[in-house]
Amino acid sequence: MPNFNPVIRKRYLEIPQPSLSDTLGDWQRLLREFKNKLGYNEVGVDLSLLGSLGRILREGNWKVTVTFSEIDGQVQLVNLEKGNTETKAYAVACDIGTTTLVMNLVDLNTGKVIDSKTSYNPQRAHGEDVTSRMMHCDKQGDLSQLHQLVIDELNSMIDHLCRSQGLKQDEINGLICAGNTIMTHILLGFDPRTIRKEPYVPLTTFYPAFLASEIGIKISPYGITKCIPGVSGYIGGDIAAGILSTRLNESEKITLFIDIGTNGETVLGGKDWIVACSGSAGSAFEGCGLEFGMNATSGAIEKIILKENGELNYETLGNKSPKGICGSALIDLLAQLLEFGIINRQGKINTQFKSSRIGKTAMGFEFVIAWSAETQINKDIVLTQADTDNLIRDKAAVYAGSAILLKSMQMEFSNVEKLLIAGNFGRHLDVEKAISIGLLPDIERNRIEFIGNSSIDGATKALLSIEDLEKAQQIADSITTFELTREPSYYDIYTSALFLPHTDMSLFPSVKIQK
Amino acid sequence: MPNFNPVIRKRYLEIPQPSLSDTLGDWQRLLREFKNKLGYNEVGVDLSLLGSLGRILREGNWKVTVTFSEIDGQVQLVNLEKGNTETKAYAVACDIGTTTLVMNLVDLNTGKVIDSKTSYNPQRAHGEDVTSRMMHCDKQGDLSQLHQLVIDELNSMIDHLCRSQGLKQDEINGLICAGNTIMTHILLGFDPRTIRKEPYVPLTTFYPAFLASEIGIKISPYGITKCIPGVSGYIGGDIAAGILSTRLNESEKITLFIDIGTNGETVLGGKDWIVACSGSAGSAFEGCGLEFGMNATSGAIEKIILKENGELNYETLGNKSPKGICGSALIDLLAQLLEFGIINRQGKINTQFKSSRIGKTAMGFEFVIAWSAETQINKDIVLTQADTDNLIRDKAAVYAGSAILLKSMQMEFSNVEKLLIAGNFGRHLDVEKAISIGLLPDIERNRIEFIGNSSIDGATKALLSIEDLEKAQQIADSITTFELTREPSYYDIYTSALFLPHTDMSLFPSVKIQK
Repeated sequence: MPNFNPVIRKRYLEIPQPSLSDTLGDWQRLLREFKNKLGYNEVGVDLSLLGSLGRILREGNWKVTVTFSEIDGQVQLVNLEKGNTETKAYAVACDIGTTTLVMNLVDLNTGKVIDSKTSYNPQRAHGEDVTSRMMHCDKQGDLSQLHQLVIDELNSMIDHLCRSQGLKQDEINGLICAGNTIMTHILLGFDPRTIRKEPYVPLTTFYPAFLASEIGIKISPYGITKCIPGVSGYIGGDIAAGILSTRLNESEKITLFIDIGTNGETVLGGKDWIVACSGSAGSAFEGCGLEFGMNATSGAIEKIILKENGELNYETLGNKSPKGICGSALIDLLAQLLEFGIINRQGKINTQFKSSRIGKTAMGFEFVIAWSAETQINKDIVLTQADTDNLIRDKAAVYAGSAILLKSMQMEFSNVEKLLIAGNFGRHLDVEKAISIGLLPDIERNRIEFIGNSSIDGATKALLSIEDLEKAQQIADSITTFELTREPSYYDIYTSALFLPHTDMSLFPSVKIQK
Repeated sequence: MPNFNPVIRKRYLEIPQPSLSDTLGDWQRLLREFKNKLGYNEVGVDLSLLGSLGRILREGNWKVTVTFSEIDGQVQLVNLEKGNTETKAYAVACDIGTTTLVMNLVDLNTGKVIDSKTSYNPQRAHGEDVTSRMMHCDKQGDLSQLHQLVIDELNSMIDHLCRSQGLKQDEINGLICAGNTIMTHILLGFDPRTIRKEPYVPLTTFYPAFLASEIGIKISPYGITKCIPGVSGYIGGDIAAGILSTRLNESEKITLFIDIGTNGETVLGGKDWIVACSGSAGSAFEGCGLEFGMNATSGAIEKIILKENGELNYETLGNKSPKGICGSALIDLLAQLLEFGIINRQGKINTQFKSSRIGKTAMGFEFVIAWSAETQINKDIVLTQADTDNLIRDKAAVYAGSAILLKSMQMEFSNVEKLLIAGNFGRHLDVEKAISIGLLPDIERNRIEFIGNSSIDGATKALLSIEDLEKAQQIADSITTFELTREPSYYDIYTSALFLPHTDMSLFPSVKIQK
């Protein structure tokens, strides 16, 4: 495996016992092995782990396994166990999304992700996007409430993964997190509210390694937490992780990277330069703000095949009865509704179209995807007019972000040699359909790549390679950020994109629309 | 002041406010000032202090005072305060003795010790010497009891000093401690018991800097604790501090350093080499194990002038009515009792001597120093036969330690170019008397220097100089230790010294004894 050099490692050591001719103290004795066997001159240790050293060394008859981290140039003893436990070396990597939390359980010996778990971020109850989360912190105690919500959910995910794999929570020795700046702040208990107001400054974009227990994460007592560094209040560690994941920063090709998620970050660049911006863009495609939106987990409708008469087939994740609809199917649906003239280019329902699936409520028209009886939730799963409007605003914002970045570099979509789409879609994201609704630009298809959740992938890479974690910092340091709201042309570009696929059809030459 | 470069410092900073053209995060913004104004590239910070940064910076309108430590090559933010508080910069240095705790309150701006406090180590209730303290740890929970006793006493000393000087406890930003290895272990909550059994190995002789709050010390919330490194189980940080205090390690002269205290460490050497040993030697001269022994604090008899007829005058510390007798007066008394033939060379009372001060109890003869009515304690203050035996054993052990070290280097007392005597005596230690009882060797008087408590002095120096704290580590690393009990000749040398001044009077040519 390239770069396999985990930031947390175990090593079995047989330590020469003290004798009258070798009376080094226990800690100095262990440090001597760190130097001789592992090449480290300086190793940090927590006070109380240091305090337990003598007992463990003697109970283990001087045969012990050290677990240590190497982060930001500092080596830290993370655990000391009797005997040889080298084969049991685990940590988790985590994407702390505004909407979704994803956790990989990683075997540090093989570098393999042995299990994975996705959950909603329970902070959603207090606002769907980062702005409303920050506003929620205005009241005394509410930051710690949001903090506790995410910590509890992470603990429950760790617990779930451990149970599934027959591990104990204290066999997990570290947690590497990638999240946007606001989510990372709340995770660590930092007040994020300065990010909301000009000049949009976070408390920090670098997060030192801490004991996981300091923020309430329940793993090994001295296990560590490290968050991937970010760039600014709106370009966070999830983006640095995404770039790390894709190696965009080493690419010879001009690459456009779009993270379709709650915050809709967009990155443009390659090995010589990187620019990035963020807008509220993409959360609808994570299911946010939609009546029956959900993330790509069991029971989500992830693929829809619509017929000309308005009837349809769908597939669900895990082949369960549906309980909602996720990003890939939303793209399928929107594209095909447009294709068959069930909605027009402004996303409005064609009331002329006759289908039992088109209904009308006090809130406006809606389109039924799954009838109540088919579902897990005993309700029709529908796409409402409001949902459609939401998706169109979202895709317009995604498009505008990319367009502004390109404009800032005097480029156009035709200059994009590689287009990377990150996000929590289903497995079957259909590129033609995504282009036909204008979510993606109309460029050569072989330049487009769907990379799924690049944040969790980058966090996992950083966990598995000291060099990659260092690269994440270099990436963060090298990015130039743009404030979309400060670009005079942003609003025009955005407004022009509020059509399917766009007001200017010449930008989407390959897309044919029914008149 | 030479080497004035405290390990904890304050610095007032006016920080450029964030703006749309300067959007660095708060922590990065502060770090930029650390780099530009203070020359530090890397600064550590505790999670929760980092969390409070944004609020303090803004409440202080970006005018703040940083307190930071520089220890073991690492710079750490210790406090952040609104406005300019540079003038209020305090820390304490502490000698953690087996018998006595001494604390200096230090002004970090001037380097001056502004107040000082001495207390008994309350662990004394659980054994007078380090061996009994270690034995006390055998029962579950008793280590934490001993730990808590010393922590509580230190907190009460800090509180006392703060009240005296009109300071708040959270204005104290650090605590530098020097103690023997066992005391330091217990201070930090480390089990010291391995030191008691062959091969006498401690948990550690290096003590990383920790948050003082981690061990329960009540100073500024992120104030630090650092213990001076030691050499081995029986040569601790108090000796490294003592050597630092005396600059023995830089001396051109062969120097013998004797710390007359509970553990009786002896050091021999100079700039090229240093050897050291420790024996249970000297505690009687701190008042330990004596019926009316006490340390050199208010109410201690510290000077005694005996007349030929057995009558006497004494002086007390603070001119208070006496409540006990301290080291300097014990030496005075023993020497004069011997001089006037009231005791013989074996320390036995001369029953022929007629004085109302000589009494007899079930426990043997005793000599009355102060009559009940003169005292604070409504009891005769006496020196018992057991006390005398104790003092003689103690002075023999002190002598034997020095003799063994010299022997190991093929030297004799005549080779000693400088003799430094450290210890908690009174102010008036009388060199002639100390030699006449054989506590000190009979060498040229101008080579002898009493230096008082060199441990607290060394700890204070280390607090006031980054370089000196580093030197303490170099000193600890450079010392070769001897195990007295493993020297075959130790017992003979010790036994020969169980006379006043010695069996071999040729070793004490200047001492004249009444026949």
